[in-house]
Amino acid sequence: MTWTLSQRAQKLTSSAIREILKVTERPDVISFAGGLPSPATFPVTQLQQACNEILTTEPTPALQYGPTEGYMPLREWIAVHHSKRCGIPIGADQVLVTTGSQQGLDLLAKVLIDTGSKVLVETPTYLGALQAFSLAEPRYCSVPSDDAGLIPASLTAEMCQEARFLYCLPNFQNPSGRRLPLERRQQLAEITARAGLLLIEDDPYGDLYYQGEPLPGLLSMNPGGVVYLGSFSKVLAPGLRVGYLIAPPALQRKLVQAKQAADLHTPSFTQRMVHTTIKDGFLDSHLPQVRALYAAQCQAMLQALQKHFPPTVQWNRPEGGMFIWVQLPAHIDSGELLEAAIQQHVAFVPGAPFYANEPQSNTLRLSFVTVPPAKIEAGIARLGALLAMRSLPRQ
Amino acid sequence: MTWTLSQRAQKLTSSAIREILKVTERPDVISFAGGLPSPATFPVTQLQQACNEILTTEPTPALQYGPTEGYMPLREWIAVHHSKRCGIPIGADQVLVTTGSQQGLDLLAKVLIDTGSKVLVETPTYLGALQAFSLAEPRYCSVPSDDAGLIPASLTAEMCQEARFLYCLPNFQNPSGRRLPLERRQQLAEITARAGLLLIEDDPYGDLYYQGEPLPGLLSMNPGGVVYLGSFSKVLAPGLRVGYLIAPPALQRKLVQAKQAADLHTPSFTQRMVHTTIKDGFLDSHLPQVRALYAAQCQAMLQALQKHFPPTVQWNRPEGGMFIWVQLPAHIDSGELLEAAIQQHVAFVPGAPFYANEPQSNTLRLSFVTVPPAKIEAGIARLGALLAMRSLPRQ
Repeated sequence: MTWTLSQRAQKLTSSAIREILKVTERPDVISFAGGLPSPATFPVTQLQQACNEILTTEPTPALQYGPTEGYMPLREWIAVHHSKRCGIPIGADQVLVTTGSQQGLDLLAKVLIDTGSKVLVETPTYLGALQAFSLAEPRYCSVPSDDAGLIPASLTAEMCQEARFLYCLPNFQNPSGRRLPLERRQQLAEITARAGLLLIEDDPYGDLYYQGEPLPGLLSMNPGGVVYLGSFSKVLAPGLRVGYLIAPPALQRKLVQAKQAADLHTPSFTQRMVHTTIKDGFLDSHLPQVRALYAAQCQAMLQALQKHFPPTVQWNRPEGGMFIWVQLPAHIDSGELLEAAIQQHVAFVPGAPFYANEPQSNTLRLSFVTVPPAKIEAGIARLGALLAMRSLPRQ
Repeated sequence: MTWTLSQRAQKLTSSAIREILKVTERPDVISFAGGLPSPATFPVTQLQQACNEILTTEPTPALQYGPTEGYMPLREWIAVHHSKRCGIPIGADQVLVTTGSQQGLDLLAKVLIDTGSKVLVETPTYLGALQAFSLAEPRYCSVPSDDAGLIPASLTAEMCQEARFLYCLPNFQNPSGRRLPLERRQQLAEITARAGLLLIEDDPYGDLYYQGEPLPGLLSMNPGGVVYLGSFSKVLAPGLRVGYLIAPPALQRKLVQAKQAADLHTPSFTQRMVHTTIKDGFLDSHLPQVRALYAAQCQAMLQALQKHFPPTVQWNRPEGGMFIWVQLPAHIDSGELLEAAIQQHVAFVPGAPFYANEPQSNTLRLSFVTVPPAKIEAGIARLGALLAMRSLPRQ
């Protein structure tokens, strides 16, 4: 028999990245495509202790249905952690635990987007956000960006008018690896506050800075006008699917209602695994190790790029996170390059799917966190050879 | 600052049941309101062994991102289990693991409902389904039911025409506890197949029959025209949030795309906890214990009802599941009764929120699985006294 799909479902397509990842799961492929954290950072011993502690001391609530808002001690930990970081009071009543921060995007789409609503995004932006928002069928408006990220001065009154929100990743953005400078953060917070425009601050990579201190977040600059999305996927383990959002209380309550219909609540068990592991300061000793590992991996890739990529190709030098963004000469299509690369057993993600409007097909994303340095050099060398062939003056 | 909510969010309200549950969490309240499984049935020891086995033998995939479709060995177990039960081949490619079966309802709403689409539901029906579907703003049509459940003969051609699907719970329905008789199942499968109407068979309670053999499911009667929703919440533990759906492959693929945007995937870790626990036949020995416990609890409540409720009140005798459905004399409003009951430290769920159209306010749902028999009798006695007062001939 046949059935009638909803209009939104008819427009649904699988993520291009997902399809690439299937090809590149073969062990003979050097893949810079994935956005997976390094398994070397998973605190297996601590998580195993947490499981045993939970199932010994409080098995019933850990295995029973729980509140939609999340496990209260975890919500309180999150509130205290961000209160300290932001230097402003944040209540546990502003926190909603989500099934990964991807779910936060889905809930925001449900609660804030009508068909045709204007939504502002960065150029490029996180593909998973486009997928989540698109189910509510918004009209995207891409805010101009440069190598330092979103350009606040480009936010005209007309652009802000009637927009439901502006979605951005100020820290080590996926896909570009860019970190928004302090001055731009201040300008962005000011302009959007004046325009009455809600900011969605997506921050899965904020803890992964390589040196110095983190930059102040947008939430600290306009607590009443920002929804903050956080995640334990990059600092503990993504397979637990524990993320969260912090929102003004009235908006948090609407998001709770939407979450109730979506999955009742995030697993009681994995929420407790996270809380039991982090509650006594584990992240203070754990995060410096993750940062050092990723900084070294990033350095290895930057050196390989310098050595093997032709001078016509440009890339950034990330200050944190998991990604490097590459700009090829305008005539090279990264989708075509990927096909050739896969023949050479190397993979990356083409940049085009990360653009809400006017895709730039001469861009690509490289992840450096899961491939060991020796293989990073081998993979980049192969890509460099392919690029060198394509960069020759045309005959 | 203020923000503009989507039209669907403006219509969102919190579940009436949820609000009641907050009141009834006080330990001095005898609550028949919850739909929680009995914690006495949680296999704590087996789950603890599973956690240790997983984190010892395969920590990386259990803590890493995983496929949206779910953990393949679990999908295969589900396919084999239902192939045997239904006597038809079911492929793992038809299975999608969901974050509780509530998420299955959310995904179906996204993929099958446009604003104003006709959706057929039982009278009454599961409140959580109404909440999930309503975010896609359908037009509900309630199919007439009697004490045996949905009446297939009432499904006129006009009613089926242009309906996106018919949603039903044939086994020990929430809220009514009704089990659809075999003949009606066959009629329902035939009528909907002829009308080209997709059936959603929601079956969280199907394993909780008290005696004999389970009745054949709708999936076995029309595999190409049914989406089956299953759950491990009632047979293992709801706090793991592992459910699943079985759908025709083309529809499963659309649902996978919607799930990818919703939460990427269900936790890798809890999926493995379920699979490791059940893979060697654990449920074969576990389920008879759950059934025996719930049958005894049901019997205790039926005896208490017989003893303490006035003869003007009617209720059913469930053959499985967790709920009894009570019909009060027409002049008694169960919402008003609840207020009086809470004064007496007893709680239940009023029936009205379970109706998509024309709520019957003289109905209520009693859950008998979490309250010990002595307290069941005490609670029912208090409710009986309140009902006796309200059943007296008017002066």
